[in-house]
Amino acid sequence: MTGATGPVSRRRLLTGGALTVGGVVAGAAATAGLSGDSSKAASAAPAMFGGNVVPFHGGHQAGIDTPAQAHGTFLAFDLAAGVDRAALGRMMRLLTDDAARLTQGRPALADTEPELAALPAHLTVTFGFGPGLFAAAGQEAMRPESVAPLPAFAIDRLQPRWTGGDLLIQICADDPMAVTHAQRMLVKDALAFAKPRWVQRGFRNSRGVQDDGVTQRNVMGQLDGTRNPALGTAAFDAAVWVDSGPSWLHGGSTLVVRRIRAEMETWDAVDTTGKEFSVGRRLASGAPLTGAREHDLPDYKATNALGLTVISDTSHIARAHVDGDRQRIFRRAYNYDEGPGPDGRSDSGLVFASYQRDVGAQFLPIQRKLAEADLLNDWTTPIGSAVFAIPPGCQPGGWIGETLLG
Amino acid sequence: MTGATGPVSRRRLLTGGALTVGGVVAGAAATAGLSGDSSKAASAAPAMFGGNVVPFHGGHQAGIDTPAQAHGTFLAFDLAAGVDRAALGRMMRLLTDDAARLTQGRPALADTEPELAALPAHLTVTFGFGPGLFAAAGQEAMRPESVAPLPAFAIDRLQPRWTGGDLLIQICADDPMAVTHAQRMLVKDALAFAKPRWVQRGFRNSRGVQDDGVTQRNVMGQLDGTRNPALGTAAFDAAVWVDSGPSWLHGGSTLVVRRIRAEMETWDAVDTTGKEFSVGRRLASGAPLTGAREHDLPDYKATNALGLTVISDTSHIARAHVDGDRQRIFRRAYNYDEGPGPDGRSDSGLVFASYQRDVGAQFLPIQRKLAEADLLNDWTTPIGSAVFAIPPGCQPGGWIGETLLG
Repeated sequence: MTGATGPVSRRRLLTGGALTVGGVVAGAAATAGLSGDSSKAASAAPAMFGGNVVPFHGGHQAGIDTPAQAHGTFLAFDLAAGVDRAALGRMMRLLTDDAARLTQGRPALADTEPELAALPAHLTVTFGFGPGLFAAAGQEAMRPESVAPLPAFAIDRLQPRWTGGDLLIQICADDPMAVTHAQRMLVKDALAFAKPRWVQRGFRNSRGVQDDGVTQRNVMGQLDGTRNPALGTAAFDAAVWVDSGPSWLHGGSTLVVRRIRAEMETWDAVDTTGKEFSVGRRLASGAPLTGAREHDLPDYKATNALGLTVISDTSHIARAHVDGDRQRIFRRAYNYDEGPGPDGRSDSGLVFASYQRDVGAQFLPIQRKLAEADLLNDWTTPIGSAVFAIPPGCQPGGWIGETLLG
Repeated sequence: MTGATGPVSRRRLLTGGALTVGGVVAGAAATAGLSGDSSKAASAAPAMFGGNVVPFHGGHQAGIDTPAQAHGTFLAFDLAAGVDRAALGRMMRLLTDDAARLTQGRPALADTEPELAALPAHLTVTFGFGPGLFAAAGQEAMRPESVAPLPAFAIDRLQPRWTGGDLLIQICADDPMAVTHAQRMLVKDALAFAKPRWVQRGFRNSRGVQDDGVTQRNVMGQLDGTRNPALGTAAFDAAVWVDSGPSWLHGGSTLVVRRIRAEMETWDAVDTTGKEFSVGRRLASGAPLTGAREHDLPDYKATNALGLTVISDTSHIARAHVDGDRQRIFRRAYNYDEGPGPDGRSDSGLVFASYQRDVGAQFLPIQRKLAEADLLNDWTTPIGSAVFAIPPGCQPGGWIGETLLG
């Protein structure tokens, strides 16, 4: 582990694994993970993670196969009139430079609060291109067909203020201040080319609340993401990275962002049995109704004394089930909570974010099944929707989007 | 340290101090800090802090002299018509019971997502009584005179949606999900008596980003809180805990919550010299302009070659300076960032929260001096204001507010 710079190895520092090895490992890895004013940080806080960085450059953009940080903000922009391919190239060179610096704990070139850049805390910045960007660039032929507004679903109650967008910036970090500072710098530099359309701020458990391997709960109390492909596996690669179609996107991905409101008032009126029946899993353990532990595989054919399947065909897990790694999606979702309104009702739910090679081949079949019949639909309402192509990463000197706009 | 249950000792676990001692200390203290399903948590994550609890019962309410957690939400309520002293007693018994359970990692009595209660992550719930609550209780004589709307200041641009309130609930934790769950349970139980008036969600650096002793930066990039009385000192006690006036409040405190918008667009247009002159401190180090290090005492009489004081009489630190511990206030502020609007401008700033014995004797003199002439006023705008009495803590079987309403 000494000298390791990947986020996973450093992340293990604060978990039991590294701690039981002893202080030497912690000290060495903490030093390796520091950036910026390392002398100051090292003396003040040898095991702190504020200075830890996730590499920016590489074949894929960071922020996808990066262990999900605690805080995630999704920003969508509308391009200004007249922004063409050349302007988009300038914009992406600028934003790439900002991201490359900020994620490494260095101020952006025009940084007006450079001190706030010193603690990136695993900051990642991930860019996405919405349908309108291809049109503005005169590159419609390069747009994957399903990078387009999703078809309308009967369950949708989409609000324009959470829907669409030409450019996406996903900003994630294990510290909310790192997200805030990066957001400010990126928005300022994007403003010459685009205006914010929506911003969705989300959270997961703070780093250090639970071990990384533990599935987290959403605001409805469900363990959320049990069947997600694991980072670093062939299943993940097969599901996420584009390997066919227009070559500019190879090594990239696609992203669906859906704002899904949790109908907490009615959900809370359901008893545990009803909740578990609608999900197909136990709430406490996350185990399928046919199993004992969270990661037991569901048995969709098992029946009860009445001859009915134990896991209802219309339960959420039955509807969301797919066969084969190529059909799976990778969910990198965040919870949101805008606080109660004057009536005391919660305004909370999920900033659902799924990465997959192909929206049409992977996300849509699942979404159609869920929209058609999923008991959970009674307590969840999609109120926003957007789709983006996620360009591949870039090398030092390069920029995100160069394979499309360069 | 073995068996220590205070938050400070556990907090040191993830800092260098404990790490260099070795894995044994980490293991022992982690076990001591776990609550709820401790067997599960201990095996999964020996050094995690999700299960750590801050004691609820005691002479003072928690959440004041508790090291400031990373996430803080301030909820103000308007009492419903007809809620009298007896009803307020019922309300506070119910809310106290919720808080006593949730902060210890146990579900509230009517908890509909009990699993979300298992990871309190240093959750604290602190209650405050606004002016209207005394009127509703028929206890006007028991209201400290300065627990009232602050006098109008010329710098104020107060918005009703961030101002006032009869009841305050301050919810803080090192995990945003713990805040969200506690908020939902407390709001649900308060609804029979009161309606939410405003909610302000704030953040500080995540636990583990920096060492606890380090002063944090606000969204303007300033080290914020250098001169705060330190927890556990006589200076803190002298500034914060009520020890005179109506006896029901002894051991309690008062809280001023001000929403202070940072005018980032104009602030960013100022150069570093101008920013430092207005604050009276260096931005990078936080040192006073007459010193070299953050905690050097400012020399307000030192002059430059032109015979002018180095630290301007109208700088923020000169205006905020007070003599004597009894005159100081204890700031427990959170940053806010609501994300950019459609024009790209930031909507961020400070949920300023100060605890002091006496608003009139401590907060107001400082605020008057700042309002009168503080260079920083050009870039900060108070847009919300509220004042609350903070009852003392209670013992097991008791309830917050019993000394006033019982």
